[in-house]
Amino acid sequence: MKYADKIVKTLRIKIKDVPGKFGELAMAIGKEGGLLGDIIKVRLDSHYVIRDVTIYIDDDEHLDKVLSRLKKIDGVKLIEITDEVLKLHEGGKITMKSKIALNTISDLQKIYTPGVASVCHAILRNPKEKYRYTSISNTVAIITNGTAILGLGNIGPVAGMPVMEGKAVLFDKLVGISGIPILIDAIDTEEIVHTIARISDTFGAIILEDIAAPSCFEVEKKLQELVDIPVLHDDQHGTAIVVLSALMNALRLVRKKKENIKVVISGAGAAGIAIAKILLAWKVRDVILCDRKGAIYSGRKEGMNEYKEKISKLTNNRKEKGSLSDIIRQKDIFIGVSVPNLLTSRMVRTMSKSAVIFALANPIPEIWPHKALKAGAALAFDGRSINNALAFPGIFRGALDARAKRITDKMKITAARSLAESAKEEEIVPHILDLNVHKKVAEAVRKAVEDNDKF
Amino acid sequence: MKYADKIVKTLRIKIKDVPGKFGELAMAIGKEGGLLGDIIKVRLDSHYVIRDVTIYIDDDEHLDKVLSRLKKIDGVKLIEITDEVLKLHEGGKITMKSKIALNTISDLQKIYTPGVASVCHAILRNPKEKYRYTSISNTVAIITNGTAILGLGNIGPVAGMPVMEGKAVLFDKLVGISGIPILIDAIDTEEIVHTIARISDTFGAIILEDIAAPSCFEVEKKLQELVDIPVLHDDQHGTAIVVLSALMNALRLVRKKKENIKVVISGAGAAGIAIAKILLAWKVRDVILCDRKGAIYSGRKEGMNEYKEKISKLTNNRKEKGSLSDIIRQKDIFIGVSVPNLLTSRMVRTMSKSAVIFALANPIPEIWPHKALKAGAALAFDGRSINNALAFPGIFRGALDARAKRITDKMKITAARSLAESAKEEEIVPHILDLNVHKKVAEAVRKAVEDNDKF
Repeated sequence: MKYADKIVKTLRIKIKDVPGKFGELAMAIGKEGGLLGDIIKVRLDSHYVIRDVTIYIDDDEHLDKVLSRLKKIDGVKLIEITDEVLKLHEGGKITMKSKIALNTISDLQKIYTPGVASVCHAILRNPKEKYRYTSISNTVAIITNGTAILGLGNIGPVAGMPVMEGKAVLFDKLVGISGIPILIDAIDTEEIVHTIARISDTFGAIILEDIAAPSCFEVEKKLQELVDIPVLHDDQHGTAIVVLSALMNALRLVRKKKENIKVVISGAGAAGIAIAKILLAWKVRDVILCDRKGAIYSGRKEGMNEYKEKISKLTNNRKEKGSLSDIIRQKDIFIGVSVPNLLTSRMVRTMSKSAVIFALANPIPEIWPHKALKAGAALAFDGRSINNALAFPGIFRGALDARAKRITDKMKITAARSLAESAKEEEIVPHILDLNVHKKVAEAVRKAVEDNDKF
Repeated sequence: MKYADKIVKTLRIKIKDVPGKFGELAMAIGKEGGLLGDIIKVRLDSHYVIRDVTIYIDDDEHLDKVLSRLKKIDGVKLIEITDEVLKLHEGGKITMKSKIALNTISDLQKIYTPGVASVCHAILRNPKEKYRYTSISNTVAIITNGTAILGLGNIGPVAGMPVMEGKAVLFDKLVGISGIPILIDAIDTEEIVHTIARISDTFGAIILEDIAAPSCFEVEKKLQELVDIPVLHDDQHGTAIVVLSALMNALRLVRKKKENIKVVISGAGAAGIAIAKILLAWKVRDVILCDRKGAIYSGRKEGMNEYKEKISKLTNNRKEKGSLSDIIRQKDIFIGVSVPNLLTSRMVRTMSKSAVIFALANPIPEIWPHKALKAGAALAFDGRSINNALAFPGIFRGALDARAKRITDKMKITAARSLAESAKEEEIVPHILDLNVHKKVAEAVRKAVEDNDKF
């Protein structure tokens, strides 16, 4: 896990082939705090060996320090530096592939003119045949306008493309969904909504990505009103579902009941509000959101917006006021989706017995888990153990399979429960690369939709 | 070629296993005019054999006739009918695939968070890096609003999806381009143009498909003004390029020079006008377009529109007037992109010596080639030998490779010349499934762009 936030570089190094020389090199890297990855022998001649040495470092400055130390070693020469991540991204990560063969003119005449006309006819006669004879029902649009890419902020849609392609890779590899990145050059909510609505026939569902708050709320809501396929802003609901699943397991471990817990959420942006909503839908009774100005309560005047107003009426029933350090006293659960190092050990010590901490600010959490545990928390996690990419593949697979028209709270809670159940004894959430996890989520979500349709 | 316009059905038939019984069955199908495809033994027991018999028929009525004749044969029982084309289309024809492995958490951290952030950064620092680190520069949007799908007319974008997917299959299989169908639910030109422009960052080029004239002209023109990537309406220019390449070879065969030929184009829609334009760009001097009202000339009043006006000023310099049968006299080349059975043998007989006929109305041409040849034409072809899907794969591969900003006349003529050169001795255009053909077109087009950029 300590590798997660590092930069990866591969150094091609020519090293004198004498005993101990590589050890000297490895020591030098270690002394500068660099971590070693794979070390591969590339070539060998009578006096020298050339190796590709992969190192994990903090940033470019850190790299410079490592390199200048290497320079001082006699018999070691740097030939080239490559960046594995960039190298891997060359040519992009995804491509549209044919699922069928094209070897003969007879094949061509079936998939293209004149044969394809009969397929068009079949859909024209019965529009539902689109589910059967096109890839629409297996396709999810991955849409961003680039206003809130990761922690990088408003970098525009094109610079956000690698993230969208990453999502498409996960869709393909985890649940076999055809994910289509769509970059939208628009900031205005109406423009975004109408642009997407006009192309929505192409897709079976829409995942909105990295659109800044509060515009993301409105885009999701208005778009869902216009189209008959599921629309989900992953930064809100993907995160909320994974947090809920982790909370389900945490409560089991600390033997507390959802009806009795007191929850503080730090951060009232897209993720914070979505987490509050899903907790309420799951029947957690006592939830308080905090932002920069402290606790949010119905009637607060400063630093409010339409969405905080709405959630203030559903949370903080006792109208607690004050800063996070006031509010956190005697609370059972802290969920942070805010800023680094906000939660102090002192604050953790004022929490109730068997407190649980989810400090999800990225890449530096509100409090490091080891520090929270030392301060007396029963359980503590940061963003590296609560992977927010866990939810979306299964929930979309299930929604497509059930031909759902929207993603309901019931589907979200069902997905969270399935994730919680899939986690192994020692985990708080399951392993993201375990395909069975996503399959189970998909089946549970599909069943939730179908059961609903029966009534 | 006689199979091209047929419907394909597979009959699963239980047949008494006695000598001559299958012959009886085959004779019955033949007597009704059904053609036989593959015949596959599915199962065998002591008295019966079950076979899948693929037949080619004209339409559902024809199928009924074949079936009722089969019913009368003793010891033959129909079990099931399947439609091969529909069966092939089940689940759609395309899917987005990852190009890279996702086996370990380390893989995930490279392609998704946190590693992907460094790729976003690289593009943010230098926007041109999008060509290197995303799939944008290998991606072509395949866009339709469904207003002119094949010969089916305005059937809407969803029923047109199988055609768009077919195009994506060709892109993948012939030139490795990632083709993304986009269905647009809009008729208004401005809406179409602005919707596409707002998502155009996602793509390296745009191919417009099956949009009705005259809207297609405006959409192409206005969109190209708004975006910095190539835009091409294939129904216009794809067809025009392939016709030009066929004409190049035809002129070689009949030993005529482009400077001296007189050309009549029947049909002044999207394809007809585009063909006229490319012929003029190639320096053919004498071109006359005919529509329902006869020859188009500058100053004609009836049945004109903006686009016919424009082309009337560039063609028919002698202002010939009259119907096709008047105009066709002493002309060297007939190019039909209009309606079935328009060109009579009598008209062909009035053409100049060594006349060449391209009768491309689909599926029934303006005149059947054998009939045209009988009437004295030197060469005659219909749509089945002039496949209009020949041009787009190579021209887009070349345009993407050269990072062209638009598709120029020079690129189109270069593509036509390359296609003409690739045709084998006995062909008028090359074989569409020969990958080398498309590779050569792509290289020629790329070179044409790069040579141009030098000046």
